[in-house]
Amino acid sequence: MKKLSVRTRVLTGATLVAALGAGTFGAVSAGAATPAAAPAAAAPAAVAADATDGNLMQSTHLTVEAATKAARATLEAAEKENQRVSVAVVDRNGNTVVTLRGDGAGPQSYESAVKKAYTAVSWNAPTSELVKRLENAPTLKDIPGTLFLGGGAPVTAKGAPIAGIGVAGAPSGDLDEKFARAGVAALAE
Amino acid sequence: MKKLSVRTRVLTGATLVAALGAGTFGAVSAGAATPAAAPAAAAPAAVAADATDGNLMQSTHLTVEAATKAARATLEAAEKENQRVSVAVVDRNGNTVVTLRGDGAGPQSYESAVKKAYTAVSWNAPTSELVKRLENAPTLKDIPGTLFLGGGAPVTAKGAPIAGIGVAGAPSGDLDEKFARAGVAALAE
Amino acid sequence: MKKLSVRTRVLTGATLVAALGAGTFGAVSAGAATPAAAPAAAAPAAVAADATDGNLMQSTHLTVEAATKAARATLEAAEKENQRVSVAVVDRNGNTVVTLRGDGAGPQSYESAVKKAYTAVSWNAPTSELVKRLENAPTLKDIPGTLFLGGGAPVTAKGAPIAGIGVAGAPSGDLDEKFARAGVAALAE
Amino acid sequence: MKKLSVRTRVLTGATLVAALGAGTFGAVSAGAATPAAAPAAAAPAAVAADATDGNLMQSTHLTVEAATKAARATLEAAEKENQRVSVAVVDRNGNTVVTLRGDGAGPQSYESAVKKAYTAVSWNAPTSELVKRLENAPTLKDIPGTLFLGGGAPVTAKGAPIAGIGVAGAPSGDLDEKFARAGVAALAE
Amino acid sequence: MKKLSVRTRVLTGATLVAALGAGTFGAVSAGAATPAAAPAAAAPAAVAADATDGNLMQSTHLTVEAATKAARATLEAAEKENQRVSVAVVDRNGNTVVTLRGDGAGPQSYESAVKKAYTAVSWNAPTSELVKRLENAPTLKDIPGTLFLGGGAPVTAKGAPIAGIGVAGAPSGDLDEKFARAGVAALAE
Amino acid sequence: MKKLSVRTRVLTGATLVAALGAGTFGAVSAGAATPAAAPAAAAPAAVAADATDGNLMQSTHLTVEAATKAARATLEAAEKENQRVSVAVVDRNGNTVVTLRGDGAGPQSYESAVKKAYTAVSWNAPTSELVKRLENAPTLKDIPGTLFLGGGAPVTAKGAPIAGIGVAGAPSGDLDEKFARAGVAALAE
Amino acid sequence: MKKLSVRTRVLTGATLVAALGAGTFGAVSAGAATPAAAPAAAAPAAVAADATDGNLMQSTHLTVEAATKAARATLEAAEKENQRVSVAVVDRNGNTVVTLRGDGAGPQSYESAVKKAYTAVSWNAPTSELVKRLENAPTLKDIPGTLFLGGGAPVTAKGAPIAGIGVAGAPSGDLDEKFARAGVAALAE
Amino acid sequence: MKKLSVRTRVLTGATLVAALGAGTFGAVSAGAATPAAAPAAAAPAAVAADATDGNLMQSTHLTVEAATKAARATLEAAEKENQRVSVAVVDRNGNTVVTLRGDGAGPQSYESAVKKAYTAVSWNAPTSELVKRLENAPTLKDIPGTLFLGGGAPVTAKGAPIAGIGVAGAPSGDLDEKFARAGVAALAE
Repeated sequence: MKKLSVRTRVLTGATLVAALGAGTFGAVSAGAATPAAAPAAAAPAAVAADATDGNLMQSTHLTVEAATKAARATLEAAEKENQRVSVAVVDRNGNTVVTLRGDGAGPQSYESAVKKAYTAVSWNAPTSELVKRLENAPTLKDIPGTLFLGGGAPVTAKGAPIAGIGVAGAPSGDLDEKFARAGVAALAE
Repeated sequence: MKKLSVRTRVLTGATLVAALGAGTFGAVSAGAATPAAAPAAAAPAAVAADATDGNLMQSTHLTVEAATKAARATLEAAEKENQRVSVAVVDRNGNTVVTLRGDGAGPQSYESAVKKAYTAVSWNAPTSELVKRLENAPTLKDIPGTLFLGGGAPVTAKGAPIAGIGVAGAPSGDLDEKFARAGVAALAE
Repeated sequence: MKKLSVRTRVLTGATLVAALGAGTFGAVSAGAATPAAAPAAAAPAAVAADATDGNLMQSTHLTVEAATKAARATLEAAEKENQRVSVAVVDRNGNTVVTLRGDGAGPQSYESAVKKAYTAVSWNAPTSELVKRLENAPTLKDIPGTLFLGGGAPVTAKGAPIAGIGVAGAPSGDLDEKFARAGVAALAE
Repeated sequence: MKKLSVRTRVLTGATLVAALGAGTFGAVSAGAATPAAAPAAAAPAAVAADATDGNLMQSTHLTVEAATKAARATLEAAEKENQRVSVAVVDRNGNTVVTLRGDGAGPQSYESAVKKAYTAVSWNAPTSELVKRLENAPTLKDIPGTLFLGGGAPVTAKGAPIAGIGVAGAPSGDLDEKFARAGVAALAE
Repeated sequence: MKKLSVRTRVLTGATLVAALGAGTFGAVSAGAATPAAAPAAAAPAAVAADATDGNLMQSTHLTVEAATKAARATLEAAEKENQRVSVAVVDRNGNTVVTLRGDGAGPQSYESAVKKAYTAVSWNAPTSELVKRLENAPTLKDIPGTLFLGGGAPVTAKGAPIAGIGVAGAPSGDLDEKFARAGVAALAE
Repeated sequence: MKKLSVRTRVLTGATLVAALGAGTFGAVSAGAATPAAAPAAAAPAAVAADATDGNLMQSTHLTVEAATKAARATLEAAEKENQRVSVAVVDRNGNTVVTLRGDGAGPQSYESAVKKAYTAVSWNAPTSELVKRLENAPTLKDIPGTLFLGGGAPVTAKGAPIAGIGVAGAPSGDLDEKFARAGVAALAE
Repeated sequence: MKKLSVRTRVLTGATLVAALGAGTFGAVSAGAATPAAAPAAAAPAAVAADATDGNLMQSTHLTVEAATKAARATLEAAEKENQRVSVAVVDRNGNTVVTLRGDGAGPQSYESAVKKAYTAVSWNAPTSELVKRLENAPTLKDIPGTLFLGGGAPVTAKGAPIAGIGVAGAPSGDLDEKFARAGVAALAE
Repeated sequence: MKKLSVRTRVLTGATLVAALGAGTFGAVSAGAATPAAAPAAAAPAAVAADATDGNLMQSTHLTVEAATKAARATLEAAEKENQRVSVAVVDRNGNTVVTLRGDGAGPQSYESAVKKAYTAVSWNAPTSELVKRLENAPTLKDIPGTLFLGGGAPVTAKGAPIAGIGVAGAPSGDLDEKFARAGVAALAE
């Protein structure tokens, strides 16, 4: 099979998807705690064969502790301004990592927060910026999972997107986004 | 805030979620190609602040090239036995990476393949093994996204699950799973 | 209209849905911060008329701070046993209040945790107990939103259900539920 | 753990989410009718421990009797003008409390009514007012569960939103909303 | 075109779908209130042509007033036994006509009530009876929209099903169904 | 209980929902073929009690034979102009009665046809007319189940809507609607 | 790129997916009626380039006329036995081609018919036969889109499945399937 | 039954749906490998009767090998420009044949790619062209399954649409579409 090209596997760090150097996991004992519910003995030989390093790459995520810290900082920022909001942290794979439904926040805030976070991490930009792109490409907002409304902010590592923080429930998207940025800022400390 | 504990961030390699050492991405120029559609200039200061390394971890994935190679090897194995199947590769985050709807495969095979792959990577075991667990916990099969039917095989790196390959369309789950394992084997070459 | 009966409005405290005594909110100035985005001036007279107290009742919830505390305690308990799980807190109205996707937890764990929490609060019992009821009523598990699998524990106030904590990702439902109970216990401190 | 702040728990009455004073439920016998299907004896000790009051808050709802009264008053108002509509009452948690599909109302009216009610209670404003906000924030209408079309009216208690009444099926949203307001008015009697 | 047969149009009254006799609506002025939002003038000639009577049949429904009366009687019956339930009335077309979420009823009760009502009207039998059919045909319960659990009762007219009443939230399906029957009984008065 | 008013039950014929006169079904033997799968003997006394006539009304539908005739006439009209379309007939309850996926019609045509039919019967107007209403009420198109695009035509009886015919797949909505009207016309013969 | 193998493209006729011989479409003028709404002039050169024959295969379908004939024959068979059912025809790609909701058929019958048809064509066997396979592989029934209940019959061409006919609404699956087979038989005439 | 007309069955080749000449499959042995899981012996006589040729037509598809080749060529084109995208190939029946989630592509790219491919094959035009049609028919974009955003290109055979290739993830739809066209071009080689 003709190789696609080395670039496929050695992506620039810009997206924090990095090729895995040989032996990267060499220090990890093969006998270390196998994942839950999958005794090594039960796995047939063919399946047990590990994928070789050349087939692998890595992606970067916030730990759940970090994501929780950011979400809490977000709620605290809203609280200081007496606003009732919900907050969500979504990773670059599109998976929701943390959600917090704020006390007294409107029912629409929960899912909105998730979608704003998803949107921010998808394009690596605050959703208040992304709204402006609708002028030239109004159907961007029809992409499933997105919400083009202020209140989402991307989280980066080395400039590349690794997560999004979304906030909803305040009277304006700008205010929501102010709180989301407070959450992002908490990760830089 | 009381720290959860260091263990949260320094997971064993068994799940291939590793703490990110300081400077891991040091070789990556901050000026390197910023992600698509997110000009650095547009990002406000607060957002531009990177998350610090202590907040980060990494997960391991198959490259799309590797996943495609595995999926094609799976179809070839089925073809050799004159079976018409569909195949899917799902990563440890639950995202579908590759799908191939085989020529002449039944309409039910496509989504079945995705679900079998999802199930195999979730529990890091072949779905033919997982079916046996239903004897003690029959409601396991009610978990959204899963299909407890032979035909799914996990892909591992250092023994930890990083993907699942699911196959559907052959007369039996055992046959489906045989082809899925051929796909897994292609990753060990 | 024939009144249903006083009992409708004066429920026993057992479900923590209590009739609202007259004047309960007397100390709250009508001029106090109106909810976000709804200037009083904009609301027409007819709409502005408050519902009278006889039409009202109250339900009890965990604060988001408490729910977050419980969810974190749950993750910490899992971490101590080197298990990777996700956790969710769902209130008595069926709304998800907090979710935390644990580092390295399987992709199936997130939604499973939500459903276990929902199930526990719906019947005010640990899901490990509820599984037993399937012997006599196997179709209980077909009720939308539920998952009859160990790992969910109810949170009560004065014995009545106000929330559920759900955990998924450990090798057994019993282990999941042990962690969920650690989360519940954190609320009694 | 650093407390978020007292404000989290002692919200202003404006949203009718109030901190629960100590002993609030003192008069409720712990032995009183336990919730359905959850014999106290079956609940293990750890689970039986109640959450302490400091972790709790309350939200205000219409009783189902009140919500039914409002919905019926709404239909009667429509009937007087020979209009065929459906009506829904949704609470501040976003849950539908009452729906009535009016005789001869169009098939689209049922779900529209639910969404208008949801929208009105989310922003505590009549949906006819909310439509105007789309001029500045056109993507507000992409928030899941909402319908920005006249016909929804909020129900308040002490000025804070506790429910929404939504109506659909009349020739115009203004007419729908007139009937919704009749439903709201019935709650002030 | 070969006619299917007269029987298609002249069904027995058993399902209350009756052929429409010529002139059935003769007393209704063609100029009578045209349906909302559809000015006669706007409708082009071809469309305005009515379907001829030979193409028509009729189905029987509860009025919304009757359905509400039944739903309220159901809740009252539950209340007398201190049970907290939700109730739904679904017509023979499968459309929900009335829902009432009872005070303090579990979150799972609302959708369960709708599904039980749907099941009862689909097979014209109490769901407690229908559960027994699962012994011979266990996959009946996989039919979309159904819930094979006691608590649903059919409403008939001349022995044919025209609606179903579903109840959920009590400790047992038998108890739920007792209340549903109280609702049915209210329609015979 | 205060009666809503007689009008609820005696609607004008305009929507073809008529009150059921006493004895309407008198000629139908109570012993006539009971509905499938519901032996009279199995139904308990309380359930067997019929709803009294005062609680009933009737709605008018196309027979499936008529709906099929209309759908076929629609396809024939399209065929004559060498257009490949799909067609759907939806009744006033919103239920799809007939669908025909035309040979070679685009994959998007099937669901579009259903939605256009639903829209036409909901507002009793051709969808080409309804599109114009979006100028004043652009969010009408956000109502679930609808598609505001030419190609849907209402079917009436005595001027009231009883069904909608929707067509999709031709190069323009006007052309789609021309075919839909051919289907409507077939019902007037 | 290493060819998968010729077999991929030259499947046996058993599934009626046949390789396209060179020049198969030679008689079709490139200038013939271009598909709706896609003027040739608008298509850029690169896109206009046709896929070469080696990349193509064909699948066999019922014409909509044939599928309608079968569906009507199905309803007629049911009618002769005074049963009220719905019927659906689904092709080997899983797309619904025809649906007919029979007069007076229960609301659950429509979607059940579609799923039975889908199941029959997926495994090329009557669903009454497929039910028996659940003894050995009970989770087969968890495959999305399927319903393992008598009433579905496959339609074949040269022994290979090209469609399924599904029926629902009669008192037993056997009876439903009898009618489905009448529909199949109509295609052999 | 009056025949619809010969044209139904003998469509022009423009859509590559061709009438099946008598004996088309004559060379295929009836004894050839019967489809998986459907032993001929198990099929009852009535079902085994093949549909006659007059009831059949054929549709043209890409082989999975060809579709994979096109998808890979698409990714390679993106890679050469250092763009991270996902790609999908959808056939004329609307079924997804191949998906490849590119390394580092945003989470929104996967489903966007599928929808763009679906849109391109539905109207047989590049989605960048289709966007322009929204000026005259803005609600076209409300058709389920579609995304009117540059990045989708149709695949044709003899000028008729047989598949669509959709790409998402690059900074602009034009760039996405450039890559999609590279995929199309690979099929003409």
